[in-house]
Amino acid sequence: MKAFKVGVLGATGAVGREMIKILAERDFPVAELHPLASARSAGKVIQFKGQDVVLEEARDEAFQGLDLVFGAAENDIAERFAPAIKAAGCVFVDNSSAFRLDPDVPLVVPEINPGDVKKHHGIIANPNCVTVIACTAVNALNAISPIRSIVASSYQAVSGAGANGPKELMAEVAALAKGEDCAPKVFARQIAYNVIPQIGGAQYAGYTSEEMKLLNEGRKIMHLPDLKVDCTCVRVPVIRSHSVSMVVRTAKKISVAEARRAIAAAPGVKLVDDLDSMEYPTPLDTSDQDLVFVGRIREDLVNDDGLNLWCCGDQIRKGAATNAVQIAELVVRDL
Amino acid sequence: MKAFKVGVLGATGAVGREMIKILAERDFPVAELHPLASARSAGKVIQFKGQDVVLEEARDEAFQGLDLVFGAAENDIAERFAPAIKAAGCVFVDNSSAFRLDPDVPLVVPEINPGDVKKHHGIIANPNCVTVIACTAVNALNAISPIRSIVASSYQAVSGAGANGPKELMAEVAALAKGEDCAPKVFARQIAYNVIPQIGGAQYAGYTSEEMKLLNEGRKIMHLPDLKVDCTCVRVPVIRSHSVSMVVRTAKKISVAEARRAIAAAPGVKLVDDLDSMEYPTPLDTSDQDLVFVGRIREDLVNDDGLNLWCCGDQIRKGAATNAVQIAELVVRDL
Repeated sequence: MKAFKVGVLGATGAVGREMIKILAERDFPVAELHPLASARSAGKVIQFKGQDVVLEEARDEAFQGLDLVFGAAENDIAERFAPAIKAAGCVFVDNSSAFRLDPDVPLVVPEINPGDVKKHHGIIANPNCVTVIACTAVNALNAISPIRSIVASSYQAVSGAGANGPKELMAEVAALAKGEDCAPKVFARQIAYNVIPQIGGAQYAGYTSEEMKLLNEGRKIMHLPDLKVDCTCVRVPVIRSHSVSMVVRTAKKISVAEARRAIAAAPGVKLVDDLDSMEYPTPLDTSDQDLVFVGRIREDLVNDDGLNLWCCGDQIRKGAATNAVQIAELVVRDL
Repeated sequence: MKAFKVGVLGATGAVGREMIKILAERDFPVAELHPLASARSAGKVIQFKGQDVVLEEARDEAFQGLDLVFGAAENDIAERFAPAIKAAGCVFVDNSSAFRLDPDVPLVVPEINPGDVKKHHGIIANPNCVTVIACTAVNALNAISPIRSIVASSYQAVSGAGANGPKELMAEVAALAKGEDCAPKVFARQIAYNVIPQIGGAQYAGYTSEEMKLLNEGRKIMHLPDLKVDCTCVRVPVIRSHSVSMVVRTAKKISVAEARRAIAAAPGVKLVDDLDSMEYPTPLDTSDQDLVFVGRIREDLVNDDGLNLWCCGDQIRKGAATNAVQIAELVVRDL
C-alpha cells in the first residue's frame, strides 16, 4: 500500500496531538510524519508509533515534499501557510474556520458528504466541532426527509477552548477548595461550578460566531441551502465531549420509532435511548470515542413535524481530529 | 400590624431552611414560628431573628392554632398533612407538586398571576423551580402578545435535588482529585465534570416529569391553556441557580428592542444583555438573589414570530422559598 509524507501544522495543541494519536490508531499510511509548530517548540521530540519524531518549525519551506498536511492551528496560522501548502502540491485538511465557507473548499463529514472531497482545489475544511456532532446525529433523519430547521442548545466541554481550558477549570476547582479566588483567563467568567452562555465573539444579530457555525456549516455539509437554525452555545464545566439538545423539523413527519431505527442503523452514530432504564448519552460516557451518541428521541410537542433529541460526542476526536483523519482517508484513496 | 402563627413543614431541608431565612429577611409578620420536621429532628434548636426556636415533630395536632403553613416537603408528606392543615383552618402554601394541577388550588407566581391567590380553598401551590424562573423571565413578553410556544433546554444546579445534591457533587470532586472512583447516589450518574439529561422519571411520551412541568404549570400560571412547550431538563455541575435557553413564539411578533424594554421594566426580573461587553447572566452571578436575570435576547432565526433568550435564577430562592413567602404576603393582606 502506498504511504504518504504527512505534516501536522499546530502539532503541540490539543487537536494536533490528538490527530497524531489517531493517525497511529487508525494505521493511516504514513511514510514520514512531520509535526510542525512554532519556533519555540521546534527540536522537541514526540512519539509516533514507538518512534521519536522531532518537532519542526512551521515555515513555508517545511511543506516541500509533503503529500498531505493536517491543519490544527488557529485561523491566522492556517491563512498564513495555506499558500505555501498549496504551492508545495500538498492537500491541506484544515481544522480552522478560515476556509470552511469558501465555495472552492469542500467542508466534509465523511458519513454525510464524502463525495464533496473530490471537489477540492488543495484545501478541504474540517467543520466546527458542534456542527460535526449535531449533523452526524441528525444525518439519518435528513436522509428520510430533508431537515427544515434545527433549534439547538449546546453544553460544550472546556477542552473545546484548547488544552488551557481543562487546566483553567482544574486550577479554579483547586483554588476554590483552598478558599482562594479564581482569576479566569481562558474563559470570560469562572467556569468551575458555573455555565457561560457565550462561545466566540458577537457575529450576527446577537448570535456568536460559534452559534452561527451550525447554520452556515450545516447548510453546506448537509446540502440544505435553506436550512434554518437557532443555536445557543454554552460552556459547561465538563472536561471533554460536547452535548447538544435539539429540536429537528423535517419536510415530512418522521415518527420516533422511524427515527430510532434510522439512527441505530446509521454510520458514525450509536443510539443509546431508553429513559425508563436511565439510558442516554452523557459527556463522560462518550469521551475519548469516535462515535456520536444519540438519545432522548421523542415527539416534538410544539411542532407536528419535529423531533426532540439529545446527542453527545467527543469534540476533539469526532468533532476535530478523527473527522480530519477520516477526510484524509478519503483523499488518499484517490492519490 | 397583625402578626401570624407560621408553620414550616420540612423545616430541615434546603427549601425549608431558606424559607425561614427569607421570612426573617423580608420581615414577614411572624408572631410565632413553628418549624416542623420528622421525629428524628424534633427537639433540635434553630435560629430565627436571633431567637432560639425548637423543631417540632410534624403531626396532625401540630397545625392547631396556626394561621399559615409553608410546605417544603416531598409530595407524600404534603399529601399526608394537607387534610390536617386545612382542618386546622390554616392556609397551606405548598412547594411540592402534589396539588399544583388541582383545579381548586391556585398556582401562583406573584409577579404573574397575583389575583389567583384569592381563589384558594386552603391550599395555594408554589410552582416548579424552572417554571417560576422561565415564566417570570418571559411574562413581560406574554403581556405584549400571548405566548404560543416555548422551546426550552435547562441547565439545572445540583441543589435542585435538595441539600444532598451539592454534597454529592463536592464529594465526587474530592474523590476524583484523590484518584478515587465516584459512587453516585443522588444522581443517576457522576455529576462532577458531567451533565445528565434526565431530571425526574419518565412521564409522558418520552418526557420526564420535570420536563412536563413547564408545559402544565406554565399554562396554568400564565393563563395560556393552549401553550405548547418542548422542554429538555439537564442537570449540570453548578451549585446553585438554574439557567434556561429558550425560544419563545408569540401571537404577534415582538422586536428585540421591544422585548428588552419590556423585560427591563418588568417586576422580578433584571435585564443583563450586552454581548459585546460580555454581559449576560450566569448561575454564579445570580445565586442567592431573588430576581430572575435575562440576557442574550435576539431574533429567532427559524421562526418569524420568535425570540431567543437566556435566563438564570436562584431556584431555592425565587424558584421556591422566596416565591412561597411572596405568595404568603399576598395571602395575609386579606387576613
